[in-house]
Amino acid sequence: VSEGAFIAVDWGTTNRRAYLFRDGVMDRTVSDGHGILAMQADEYGASIARLREELGDFPLLLAGMVGSNRGWRDAGYIGCPATLVMLASRIIHIPERIALAPGVSFISGGRADVMRGEEVQLLGAVSAGMAPGDALLCQPGTHCKWARMLGGAIASFVSVMTGEMFALLRSNALIGSLMGGPVTDSPAFREGVARAGEQDLLAALFGVRPASLLGLRDEGTAASYVSGLLIGSDCRAQVGKNDQVFVLADTKLGSLYSAAIEEIGGKAILLDSHAAFCAGITNIWDLIQ
Amino acid sequence: VSEGAFIAVDWGTTNRRAYLFRDGVMDRTVSDGHGILAMQADEYGASIARLREELGDFPLLLAGMVGSNRGWRDAGYIGCPATLVMLASRIIHIPERIALAPGVSFISGGRADVMRGEEVQLLGAVSAGMAPGDALLCQPGTHCKWARMLGGAIASFVSVMTGEMFALLRSNALIGSLMGGPVTDSPAFREGVARAGEQDLLAALFGVRPASLLGLRDEGTAASYVSGLLIGSDCRAQVGKNDQVFVLADTKLGSLYSAAIEEIGGKAILLDSHAAFCAGITNIWDLIQ
Repeated sequence: VSEGAFIAVDWGTTNRRAYLFRDGVMDRTVSDGHGILAMQADEYGASIARLREELGDFPLLLAGMVGSNRGWRDAGYIGCPATLVMLASRIIHIPERIALAPGVSFISGGRADVMRGEEVQLLGAVSAGMAPGDALLCQPGTHCKWARMLGGAIASFVSVMTGEMFALLRSNALIGSLMGGPVTDSPAFREGVARAGEQDLLAALFGVRPASLLGLRDEGTAASYVSGLLIGSDCRAQVGKNDQVFVLADTKLGSLYSAAIEEIGGKAILLDSHAAFCAGITNIWDLIQ
Repeated sequence: VSEGAFIAVDWGTTNRRAYLFRDGVMDRTVSDGHGILAMQADEYGASIARLREELGDFPLLLAGMVGSNRGWRDAGYIGCPATLVMLASRIIHIPERIALAPGVSFISGGRADVMRGEEVQLLGAVSAGMAPGDALLCQPGTHCKWARMLGGAIASFVSVMTGEMFALLRSNALIGSLMGGPVTDSPAFREGVARAGEQDLLAALFGVRPASLLGLRDEGTAASYVSGLLIGSDCRAQVGKNDQVFVLADTKLGSLYSAAIEEIGGKAILLDSHAAFCAGITNIWDLIQ
């Protein structure tokens, strides 16, 4: 059990969430938009001082993009298979009681992939017994991660630009003007998931405009259809029939991924991603005491 | 044979090319950036007057996006199978000796697609004997078209947002900053075409950044690799082993599509797209005299 108090920060690209732990129990959490893209290189010290003013003058353990070459300090990567013990062994210590966790890289057959922050959730979900040690885990988002856990370690993973592609299309593509509606688990979303099975994503995306021009799809449903196409493509590349997937996500994205996974014959189990992060980060904290 | 002289205009979204024909022979051609996106609704008359000042006071035959609901007048669509005779029969006549050709639509099994302008090239290529009446034709570009010709008619077609996706990624995606280099038929391009066979385009696109971070790909080759991924995905969805594809394109895009088609076991034959347009539009002109 963690002794004393510490502040853990899941410090991402666009957002940041800090957790105050006392004796291994989460006491308070605050989140804001001060991701690394909103930070100048010389602002980290002052930003951390403000976090301590808010949560208490405790040691800090930082994970996520803050440890990348675009963040505060580059904490490097550990390779796969990756465990909490390996993460803890490669922590970087910075003056004023600040510890910075490395990321995880995976290189195989000419392919390379990296993650920062997600590994804490993945390994935390397993260490807390939320998912078994041999399992397929999915973290939907801007860059969706699919991790294969073996013997409790991250054996391999792949990142997919699902969320970023949706945002790109809505903001900048010719079909973007049709994508103003909400994204919901609806018949249009399911149609997109089904259409993704035809393996011609770039043609299916073009087809959004003619379907509208020729009145084949209800107005306002294009965003759900495109989301179904993208999430469906993402899931079909990773999930086979009868595969079980543990999904770490908020309720909205989690329910869309669940729907897509079940539409293609898999089984989705939704996990609480905050609980998984807390389990992982307190484990690392214990290991470095 | 066409009698007298007329001006044909291939009037697209971003560009416009006008051809002066005298007795069925192309005499002069001029092109500019006055596509429909650069035109206000009330500017078409004046713009046509200027074309006549430049090329002569002759009747005009317009094809392409100028006949869309975003262009000058909506000339509607003819369905598939589509022929030059059907296009000619649905020409719209506008005062001051101007004829406007319809587009072509294809609807099948809940899918819809449309084209405007490309049909003149497709049917022209066949009528001029550049491609057989039963063939697969490809027109690379912002929205790449793949048309199945049967008995000399356009039997079906599909549009793919290949070129638009490349531009979106380069201008707006996180990997865009790595895509500054030229696109050439290079080992990186071929690697992208091969990688497209794994049917996980959104994962392969994400992988561009980690490959760079971890030094797995030479700097300056990401644009070629991404182009290979997109063109490879496009071709793999349409071309089977030993399929013959007639490609209507400029030299640069044509050679990239040829390389991709041959990499996946097909055979590409490059055709002159301007010659195909001239053949198609003079045929329509003859039919409406």
